[in-house]
Amino acid sequence: MEDLVGLHEGAAGEPVALQELWGPCPRTQHRIRGFLERVKRQLFRVGEDWYFLVGLGVLMAIISFTMNFAVSRVVHGSGISELKVILSGVVLEDYLDIKNFGAKVVGLTCTLACGSTIFLGKVGPFTHICCMIASYMGKVRISALGEYENKIKQNELLVAAAAVGVATVFGAPFSGVLFSIEVMSSHFAVWDYWRGFFSAVCGAFMFRLLAVFNSEQETITSLFKTRFRVDIPFDLPEIFFFVLLGFVCGIMSCAYLFGHRRFVMFVRTNCITKNLLATDKPLYAALVALILASITYPHSLGRFMASRLSMNLYLNSLFDNQSWALLSRNSSPEWPPEVDPNNLWFEWYHPQFTIFGTLTFFLVMKFWMLILATTIPMPAGYFMPVFIYGAAMGRIFGEILAVIFPEGIKTDDGVVNTILPGAYAVAGAAAFSGAVTHTISTALLVFELTGQFVHVLPVLMAVLAANAVCQNFQPSFYDNGIILKKLPYLPRVVGRKLNSHWVTAELFMNPNITTLAKDSPLDEVVKTVTSTEAAEFPLVESEESQILVGIIQRAQLLPFLQAEPSIQTPGHQWRLQDVLSGGCPVEPVTLQLSPQTSLHQVHHLFELLKMRRILVTSMGRVVGFISWVELKKAIADLANPPAPK
Amino acid sequence: MEDLVGLHEGAAGEPVALQELWGPCPRTQHRIRGFLERVKRQLFRVGEDWYFLVGLGVLMAIISFTMNFAVSRVVHGSGISELKVILSGVVLEDYLDIKNFGAKVVGLTCTLACGSTIFLGKVGPFTHICCMIASYMGKVRISALGEYENKIKQNELLVAAAAVGVATVFGAPFSGVLFSIEVMSSHFAVWDYWRGFFSAVCGAFMFRLLAVFNSEQETITSLFKTRFRVDIPFDLPEIFFFVLLGFVCGIMSCAYLFGHRRFVMFVRTNCITKNLLATDKPLYAALVALILASITYPHSLGRFMASRLSMNLYLNSLFDNQSWALLSRNSSPEWPPEVDPNNLWFEWYHPQFTIFGTLTFFLVMKFWMLILATTIPMPAGYFMPVFIYGAAMGRIFGEILAVIFPEGIKTDDGVVNTILPGAYAVAGAAAFSGAVTHTISTALLVFELTGQFVHVLPVLMAVLAANAVCQNFQPSFYDNGIILKKLPYLPRVVGRKLNSHWVTAELFMNPNITTLAKDSPLDEVVKTVTSTEAAEFPLVESEESQILVGIIQRAQLLPFLQAEPSIQTPGHQWRLQDVLSGGCPVEPVTLQLSPQTSLHQVHHLFELLKMRRILVTSMGRVVGFISWVELKKAIADLANPPAPK
Repeated sequence: MEDLVGLHEGAAGEPVALQELWGPCPRTQHRIRGFLERVKRQLFRVGEDWYFLVGLGVLMAIISFTMNFAVSRVVHGSGISELKVILSGVVLEDYLDIKNFGAKVVGLTCTLACGSTIFLGKVGPFTHICCMIASYMGKVRISALGEYENKIKQNELLVAAAAVGVATVFGAPFSGVLFSIEVMSSHFAVWDYWRGFFSAVCGAFMFRLLAVFNSEQETITSLFKTRFRVDIPFDLPEIFFFVLLGFVCGIMSCAYLFGHRRFVMFVRTNCITKNLLATDKPLYAALVALILASITYPHSLGRFMASRLSMNLYLNSLFDNQSWALLSRNSSPEWPPEVDPNNLWFEWYHPQFTIFGTLTFFLVMKFWMLILATTIPMPAGYFMPVFIYGAAMGRIFGEILAVIFPEGIKTDDGVVNTILPGAYAVAGAAAFSGAVTHTISTALLVFELTGQFVHVLPVLMAVLAANAVCQNFQPSFYDNGIILKKLPYLPRVVGRKLNSHWVTAELFMNPNITTLAKDSPLDEVVKTVTSTEAAEFPLVESEESQILVGIIQRAQLLPFLQAEPSIQTPGHQWRLQDVLSGGCPVEPVTLQLSPQTSLHQVHHLFELLKMRRILVTSMGRVVGFISWVELKKAIADLANPPAPK
Repeated sequence: MEDLVGLHEGAAGEPVALQELWGPCPRTQHRIRGFLERVKRQLFRVGEDWYFLVGLGVLMAIISFTMNFAVSRVVHGSGISELKVILSGVVLEDYLDIKNFGAKVVGLTCTLACGSTIFLGKVGPFTHICCMIASYMGKVRISALGEYENKIKQNELLVAAAAVGVATVFGAPFSGVLFSIEVMSSHFAVWDYWRGFFSAVCGAFMFRLLAVFNSEQETITSLFKTRFRVDIPFDLPEIFFFVLLGFVCGIMSCAYLFGHRRFVMFVRTNCITKNLLATDKPLYAALVALILASITYPHSLGRFMASRLSMNLYLNSLFDNQSWALLSRNSSPEWPPEVDPNNLWFEWYHPQFTIFGTLTFFLVMKFWMLILATTIPMPAGYFMPVFIYGAAMGRIFGEILAVIFPEGIKTDDGVVNTILPGAYAVAGAAAFSGAVTHTISTALLVFELTGQFVHVLPVLMAVLAANAVCQNFQPSFYDNGIILKKLPYLPRVVGRKLNSHWVTAELFMNPNITTLAKDSPLDEVVKTVTSTEAAEFPLVESEESQILVGIIQRAQLLPFLQAEPSIQTPGHQWRLQDVLSGGCPVEPVTLQLSPQTSLHQVHHLFELLKMRRILVTSMGRVVGFISWVELKKAIADLANPPAPK
């Protein structure tokens, strides 16, 4: 295109023989072409990144919506859906491989189709799917545009993808972005946060738009609308109870996380379950699903835990702004043959058990059922169940308060403000899910979901209280996963008292580093390279000086080492520098530490720059290196000093 | 205390002669003491950081509240308040010096006392005050605890302080934290964000609590409550108009920022105003205040711009959920002698002008008045006026739509949803203030202020549209300030096309670096040190090798250089290494770059680590350094390549 235009312009005076100029109105054609060219240039100036983000958001919304749609179809079928879940026990090896995309979507759709039976959500796997797509789209873009592949940029896109994932599940852009940031990383760029918002808004918009086109909703609003009174939503002393609820949620979350970790360990080490999981994943999943399904069967125990409600209806019912305890004093409704969408609380009511009985039973049963469900090897989210569990805790807390203070906690001037148990359910959901995931953006999430912002302070204080308890005593749910799956991770330097400023690199770096010297004879180099499995070697000026020059990749050096010996010249001792001058590339060292760099600084650098390994030099000489292994050990030693020998 | 307990424990078997053991119940005393000791230890384990943050939040809330309180007292006085403002034109030299604290608080209180006359807010200066206090509290803590002074920690506390500042002004913890993050930095730690939330919640809670105790409010809720309908708050096609409003706000913000920058430049270069500002700040402030006050006098032009309303009432009136255009068709109310708090829109109504006239007049007049007001040399915030201006823009936009579609934009099934001009005011406020400050957390701010979350998507899309326009064409309001005040700053590497990956440190570093060699004669060292004004010098092994060893601070070297020559020994040539072995401290170099580090990486490092200067070494030799100056030049050259010579 550029060439053609150039030709036209350059050839202004001479006769042009190109075919298209013989068509009708060559001038108009030319002008239109020029205009299009300008538009194209303008669009490219904005940056193709943004198109990418639009595409990502829209695509994820469509998938999310299709999944919901499929679920609503399947759920109207029969118990076959449970069977489908059992058959989809896919464990993914390559986390971002697009090949597993189909399996993941189908599996997750099946899981969700079970509704409240297995009591699982879609946040986690959906975020995973979103990252798979982002990674794939990124690869396509790189190959299409022939762009320089950039790790930082890829990372940025994955952060945005995670934000889109959370945002489209809930249709909540703000908390989606913040939640994904809190969960995914310890540092982030404001720039990423903007990109995340942009993509999340595209996704949330599309998701809601599809809901409107499907005539489910009139317009684009919150998912679980509450109608709390706005004048005086709560009395001032209630703040105290909200904070108390936060502490209770914090303690419960510790119990949940502890139980979860222990149970997963047990399942993995116990002979029977271990073998079952190793050989017959579908059978294990079937057994667990069978147990859960038989308990939640609405006409057996399910009657006492409102199990006819779907995940969404659970939340809708728990966020109800009436007090069930007070309602059930005046009336004792029958258990309706079908779920009554206008009186969801009927599901929670039982003449003998009362609502307190059913709520308590729900909490007790779901506690271990939730832990059991997490061991099923299939794509499923654990955020939504935790969220609902917290809402139920808040609900029962609120209902108890409503019974104790039926007239509300009176203010001076005799105005009666009854207690809203629904508000406690909102706070409980935020506090418990926040504590389990070690985040505070769940506080924002509940407001985005409910569309009301009147309880900001009490909810935030409950979430902070719950986090204060849980962060002190247990790793988060996601860290649990990392610990259980033995994935690599970088621990936090806890506390400032621990004097991480006084521990220097010298004390914890690994001094056993294999260097290649420019003046080493080739056979020695070969010996060195074959004796270790390191992927890269520091190149030094000479064996004596050990002055750092650059880095040689093993993969790039090997072909040269294999080729060279054939041209052996007698009398000439081949050295590494001959290989280098023969074309073996040496990468520059962009960053070096000195032995005096403090542990605190090293940790900061590793976290910020997402590094895996840095060389330590002293006066130009290579003296060691630091990787995650050394860093982790140093941090562990700092927390629990090794006994002196 | 520790010693005493140790003594008791150690002396268990022997007779104890200490006096307190002769008091009643020595065992109980001992137990209580042990218990207190345990409590103390437990509290210290939690970390004194958190107490600091509680203290900061509470203190700022009290100050904020006291200021508001004082304003309400002064405003009920007379025109004296204007006089007070004029006399308080204090310009601060030391940004965080606590000495200026009193002046700042008094000045700001006076400014605010003028209400809508000068049309200024308190966000900026209040944040400043908050940072002053944080810095002071930090210093007190360091001297009290004898702690190691830590720049990173100080920085963390300032980020938290800025968050508290914004959060206490609005009583909005979420957006306070996000706004301060967006405005202050390009990268941040999730850890800082948690601390910010914690402190902001303490502050917001205290602020609201004081309002309750002062019997202004019944409980702790949002400041500018809206009552939009929640079922179908807007029709789907209205999204288009919201985005359109966003673009309009973006364009207006460009005009405002451009006008602001140009006008401030004009005031500074124009002979008359320049001299006035240099010699007679109070006189200049008085003149400007006089102009503004005479225009906004309610019985002159002020009648046409609702100038009897205070800043808060402006927002309350603009966020009203009725349509004034439709209301004024049915009734033509009189101009009440006093502001009617239940019918604030009467202030905007004029029989001849109609509400469109007054709103337009407001927008036209406030545009230049706002720019004029920013030149007054006194502590004042510019966020709130911009926010109100945006709300007025949104209001007029919404009112026009309400007139065009009096029955709402009809949906298929004939349900009429009238247009809510108040929702457009909310979106306009967020979009305009977001564009002017280059942030998107203003979208969250409006929801926290109004307590309703129903317009999330349209408002977010409007804010994104406004930001897309403004960020492309104008620097933000705060960047304007930096440019005008010639403060140092680091530009962003714009765009990825610009190949910042291919420009290496070699090409833009400053090779003219003065090093001190260990083997240099002392008189040469003295010559070198006195010939430049550098604050620190790289120390190299020898003049010949130039191998980097460490850094010497000028301030620490000078005393040694002045003292040494007295012990001149004949026959012995004093060298720098003698001074060093005499005790002059050498700091280690924790981080070095190589000449091959790319501009992109260097920029990333400077931003992340908040560095001012890094040394570049090649094979251990010092070859140059990079500071903000070199980096800025390199980025500028990248954007506008210098003409080849």
